[in-house]
Amino acid sequence: MPPSDYGAPAGDPELREAIAGYLRRWRGVACGAGDVVVTAGAIQAVDLIARAIIEPGDTVGFEEPGYPLARQALQARGAKLLPVQVNHDGMQVDLIPSGPGAPIFVYVTPSHQYPLGARMPVGRRMALLEWARANDALVVEDDYDSVFRFDAPPLQALAGLDDGGRVAYIGTFSKVLSPALRVGYLVVPPPLRERVEHFKRISDFHASWPLQRALPAFVREGHLERHIRRMRRHCGDKRQALSATLAPVSDVARPRGLEAGLHEFLELDATVDPVPLSRAGRDRQHRPPVLHARQRPGLLLGYGGLTIDEINAGGRVLAATIRAAAAG
Amino acid sequence: MPPSDYGAPAGDPELREAIAGYLRRWRGVACGAGDVVVTAGAIQAVDLIARAIIEPGDTVGFEEPGYPLARQALQARGAKLLPVQVNHDGMQVDLIPSGPGAPIFVYVTPSHQYPLGARMPVGRRMALLEWARANDALVVEDDYDSVFRFDAPPLQALAGLDDGGRVAYIGTFSKVLSPALRVGYLVVPPPLRERVEHFKRISDFHASWPLQRALPAFVREGHLERHIRRMRRHCGDKRQALSATLAPVSDVARPRGLEAGLHEFLELDATVDPVPLSRAGRDRQHRPPVLHARQRPGLLLGYGGLTIDEINAGGRVLAATIRAAAAG
Repeated sequence: MPPSDYGAPAGDPELREAIAGYLRRWRGVACGAGDVVVTAGAIQAVDLIARAIIEPGDTVGFEEPGYPLARQALQARGAKLLPVQVNHDGMQVDLIPSGPGAPIFVYVTPSHQYPLGARMPVGRRMALLEWARANDALVVEDDYDSVFRFDAPPLQALAGLDDGGRVAYIGTFSKVLSPALRVGYLVVPPPLRERVEHFKRISDFHASWPLQRALPAFVREGHLERHIRRMRRHCGDKRQALSATLAPVSDVARPRGLEAGLHEFLELDATVDPVPLSRAGRDRQHRPPVLHARQRPGLLLGYGGLTIDEINAGGRVLAATIRAAAAG
Repeated sequence: MPPSDYGAPAGDPELREAIAGYLRRWRGVACGAGDVVVTAGAIQAVDLIARAIIEPGDTVGFEEPGYPLARQALQARGAKLLPVQVNHDGMQVDLIPSGPGAPIFVYVTPSHQYPLGARMPVGRRMALLEWARANDALVVEDDYDSVFRFDAPPLQALAGLDDGGRVAYIGTFSKVLSPALRVGYLVVPPPLRERVEHFKRISDFHASWPLQRALPAFVREGHLERHIRRMRRHCGDKRQALSATLAPVSDVARPRGLEAGLHEFLELDATVDPVPLSRAGRDRQHRPPVLHARQRPGLLLGYGGLTIDEINAGGRVLAATIRAAAAG
C-alpha cells in the first residue's frame, strides 16, 4: 500500500542511504544519507540549484559547447551565461574570470564532457576547485554518465576531491538504468540544503514513492553494480561496433570522446557538410544532431539506446554517405 | 523493459487519453489527450503555470485563507499575491479588481475551498468566468479533491463551464490514490501549451515511465472509478465518525466544509485558544494545524489518512480538551 501522506522532500531515507553508499564506493564522494536529495533526473537537479542560488542577472560559467537542456534551465532562472571554451581536457579553467567578473558558479561535466566527450584531468580539476575557493564560488558537477568508461578507470569526482564545500554534485539513474525512470540525485554543501529542499517541495513535493521504494533494494543488494558491469561490457561492444563501421572514413571523420560515456562526437573534415549527413539518418529517431565545435563541424552520435545491429546498419549508411560527401 | 530514451514532456499518450476520458466523464471537462499534460502532482502543475505565465511583479489573485504550498510556488516566481477573501461560497469574486488593477490570473479551489471547505455555487462560477473574459485573464482551477463529495453531487468544473479558453485545470491522483505517487495533470488552453511543455522539460523532462505505464490500464479498466466509489463510502464513514466524536462540543466548535473532501475546518468559539489544542495532538503526525480564518480561530483537521479507530480516539481527546479549554 502506498502511504496515505506526503513524504520528505529530500526523499526516502533508505534510498538516500543507498545512493550515498554507491557514491562513496564508485565516485569517491564522502557523503552520508543526509547529504543526498533525490531528484527527478539530472535536469531537475540543475533546475533546483538554479532556483536555489541564482538571482536574475547573476553570471554562470557554462561549457561551450555544452548541454542544451541545462543551459535552458539556467537561463529560465534569469542567469547570464558566460561561455567557457572546452578543449581536449574539458572546460578551459584558466579562461574563467576571477575577481569582480567571476561567475557565481560554473556548470561542468568533467567525467565525459557533454557533448565533446573530454575527460578533465586531475590537474585541471584541482585548478577548478582552487578557482572556486579563491572566488568564493561553487562548482556544479554533472556526473551524468561517469561509470561508462572503457579505456581507463573513472577519475574521482570533483566532489570527492573537494574539501571545502565548494561542489554541488549531480548524478542520475538515467544512463545506468533508464532515462524514463526520471530518478537522479543531488549532493549539495550543507548551507544550500534548506533552500534546495524548499524548491524541491514547491516543484513536486518529493520523488514518487513506488520508485523510491524499489530502488534501495536494487542498489543495496548489488544489482545496480552488477548491472553497471554488464552494461559496461555491452556498451563497450557497441562502441567497438561503431568504431569499426566508421573506420573506413577515418581520414575525414574522427571520433572524439569514445573512451567513455554513451555518445561520441564525430568531428568532420571541413570539406564535409554535416547537414545532409544528419538528414541521411534512416528516421527521426536515429537522426544525429549536427554540432559545430571549435569551428569544426561534426555529428553527435548517441549509441546507448541502439542495438549492435542498429549501430552496424546505421554506421555503414553513415560511412557511405560521408565517403560520397567527401568525394563530391 | 523501460525505454532506453526519454519520453514526451507532456506524458505518455495512453495516460493522457485515460485522464482525458476520466475528466470528460467525471468532471464535465470537454478535453482530449492532446490537452493534458501529466505532472508530478498538483503542486508541479501550479509551478508550471507560474513559470509559464508570471513575469516577476505580476499580480495574481489568491484565496484568503488559501493553500500555503501554492502560495509559495507563485511567490517563488516573483508574483505579487492579491488576497481575495473567502466566504461560505468560496472566493468572493466581486472583490477581484477589474480594469488596470486586475490580476493576470486567479488561483481558486472551487470544489472544496482549501482550507475552509466551501463549494463555489454555479452563479459565482459563472461570475468568475465572466470576470476572466472581461479582463482577458485566466482562472487556475485546482480541483484537488473534487470527487469526495458526500451530501450533493460535485458541481461541474469551471473548466467544463468555460467556453472561451479561460481556465487552466489542475487535478491529481494524490487524494484518490495516494499523495506519494506524485502524479497529477494539467489541462491548459492551447496558446499556453508550448510554454508549459518547455518548463516541464526543464523541470524534470517528463513523468516517470513505470507510473505512466501502470496508470492507464488502472483508469481505462474502471479500477479508478470503482476505487473512488469505495473511497467515497469509506471516507463518508470517517467523516461521520469525526462528526460524532465532536458533536458534544458543537456549542463551541463548529465543523465547516465537511460535506466534501478529506478535511474539515473546525471553527472555534473566540473563548477557546486553538494553540494548546493543537499541541494536545498525540504526536506530530496527528497534530492539527491552527488556522485563523476571518478572525475566527480554528483547527484544520485532515482525516483522509487516518483510520476510523484513530479518528475515534483522537476525536475524543480533542473534544475533551476543547471542553476543558472552554470551561477554563
